[in-house]
Amino acid sequence: MEKDTVVNIKIEKAETSKINEVDFSNLSFGSVFTDHMFICDFKNGSWQEPTIIPYQKLSMDPSAKVFHYGQAVFEGMKAYKDDQDEVWLFRPDENFHRINKSSARLAMPEFPEEYFFDGLNQLLKLDKQWIKKGFGNSLYIRPFVIATETGVSASPSTEYKFIIICSPAQAYYAGEVRVKIADHYSRSASGGFGFAKAAGNYAGQFYPTSLANKEGFQQVIWTDSNTHEYLEEAGTMNVFFRIGDKLITCPTSDRILDGVTRKSVIQVAKDLGIQVDIRPIKVVEIIEAAKNNQLKEIFGSGTAAVINPILGFGYKGDKWELPKLEDSYASTIKNTILGIQYNTIEDKYGWRVKVD
Amino acid sequence: MEKDTVVNIKIEKAETSKINEVDFSNLSFGSVFTDHMFICDFKNGSWQEPTIIPYQKLSMDPSAKVFHYGQAVFEGMKAYKDDQDEVWLFRPDENFHRINKSSARLAMPEFPEEYFFDGLNQLLKLDKQWIKKGFGNSLYIRPFVIATETGVSASPSTEYKFIIICSPAQAYYAGEVRVKIADHYSRSASGGFGFAKAAGNYAGQFYPTSLANKEGFQQVIWTDSNTHEYLEEAGTMNVFFRIGDKLITCPTSDRILDGVTRKSVIQVAKDLGIQVDIRPIKVVEIIEAAKNNQLKEIFGSGTAAVINPILGFGYKGDKWELPKLEDSYASTIKNTILGIQYNTIEDKYGWRVKVD
Repeated sequence: MEKDTVVNIKIEKAETSKINEVDFSNLSFGSVFTDHMFICDFKNGSWQEPTIIPYQKLSMDPSAKVFHYGQAVFEGMKAYKDDQDEVWLFRPDENFHRINKSSARLAMPEFPEEYFFDGLNQLLKLDKQWIKKGFGNSLYIRPFVIATETGVSASPSTEYKFIIICSPAQAYYAGEVRVKIADHYSRSASGGFGFAKAAGNYAGQFYPTSLANKEGFQQVIWTDSNTHEYLEEAGTMNVFFRIGDKLITCPTSDRILDGVTRKSVIQVAKDLGIQVDIRPIKVVEIIEAAKNNQLKEIFGSGTAAVINPILGFGYKGDKWELPKLEDSYASTIKNTILGIQYNTIEDKYGWRVKVD
Repeated sequence: MEKDTVVNIKIEKAETSKINEVDFSNLSFGSVFTDHMFICDFKNGSWQEPTIIPYQKLSMDPSAKVFHYGQAVFEGMKAYKDDQDEVWLFRPDENFHRINKSSARLAMPEFPEEYFFDGLNQLLKLDKQWIKKGFGNSLYIRPFVIATETGVSASPSTEYKFIIICSPAQAYYAGEVRVKIADHYSRSASGGFGFAKAAGNYAGQFYPTSLANKEGFQQVIWTDSNTHEYLEEAGTMNVFFRIGDKLITCPTSDRILDGVTRKSVIQVAKDLGIQVDIRPIKVVEIIEAAKNNQLKEIFGSGTAAVINPILGFGYKGDKWELPKLEDSYASTIKNTILGIQYNTIEDKYGWRVKVD
């Protein structure tokens, strides 16, 4: 990454590593963190000296704006180690640009590109031992920005913290996933900030999802808040539908996250010769296709699982199960993306970026 | 308040008071806090022992869920001191019920009523000297709840902090307020959580408001996200329109905050003999009324200012100024509510509640 732009990052190394306390064969997603974190403060109108310090708690005033007015955005990325012990990132430029797009929509300052990449590079070098070899193992990387100015008046914060924390992860398996198609609750509004990876887009999903859980669904596929007639996204995943031999996903909009895995899936599918339609999808179209046995697959795409097959769905009390396929698009596309991520196949796209 | 339910609150008093460092004649809203704070942790499925401690920073893990998934709700209340040094709250039961309604929508645990009122009572007694006499002076009270469980997986937190902090305030004057009526950006979706006093409802307003600022407007009046044809709320205030002798405000919904001041304004206006229509209001209706000189007043209602007159508005490039009235509804209603709050007039509603 960006070798020629070296930023002066102040590094304070952890005195001891916690790594020997961690059972890498039994990791719960996102619950264990590496020895170090990257942190950079914004104040007086500019980003201050970036630092890498031992992973530690933050001292936050109770009136810090993030607690009251929700200025908080984040990204999800992964680092992978290949058989030669080289560490790779997957399309990190996409995450960098997206966190700044999210920040801008929430009136938060954009983060400098060289701070982001040099910080990430140096943090990963320091905590390289936390990235385990083997298909499925990875280091989940969480850059995020929070508003830290004190004061309970509803206005944009003048102070922020940009932080990167890292958590070792095994192959992500979400269990059997069946989804409820939303017919009352909504995730985001036209003219809102659903496209941003903002904290405020998540909290509102938990309660409707808990109601779906009680009906036997693990997740919700959100529909447009106006008519609930059009399928949008699953809150932590974009969604793809295979009808016959066609793969369909809805276009991105100001309500829908422009997923890095989503756009990778679209590209890989096209290059595998699959017809991909990017267009609005009506709920009734999916139900018709299910009735006619033309609905072959539904899957979600996201950083954590790459692709998550969806086994069935429910809508207004009715339930459908999907067929079990030997040669699913989901598994073919997922294996291609994983191959690129783990450096086991050629990357003709230039998506794989070495950490050095 | 609730004298008969005494909760065991552990109190640790501040060794010294900061009160002498504060210039009470020159307070910036929400920036100075009293000597103590109320704090209560939720873990293992229940609220733990409530405590009052010296106002202090919180030690938060960088992976705390509030920073990533936005589970955060709050309330805004005020305490007033009358000429006999008695301290009063205004309809605190409304705030108590609303914070739990907000929490429920965000899959957060509800807070026990006796903890809320005993905590508030004892905190206000300890910091009573921070409440200054005199019309306009008050103590702004900020109860809030944040998700504190560590871990970057998108699921409801199992741990929370309920906190109350207090900030001395002078009469709130927002300056001359002209508003832009939104025609592109939105505050909330049908089926979303716009009715909740949730952190995530605020961050998204700052950027569109900054665009409105550049056009000479201080605030935005949000419209429905579907058509932008109907007027909703101003983000930190509900909105009232006076056409001729009628006062009109839109009904509450899942997109609109059920404001305590809003419902007080409606009641007081009715009892003053003013006809109040609670119904959907089209933008075109307001523009027509402005053209015909029938639009007499627009004002916002909220805890901070009680009532905030709006001097003009803009919509899609056009601008209107409102007439300056001697006998505005805004000032008549505001004076009645202030009289109740400061114990200078009879409170036939039972809204005023003594802190003892």
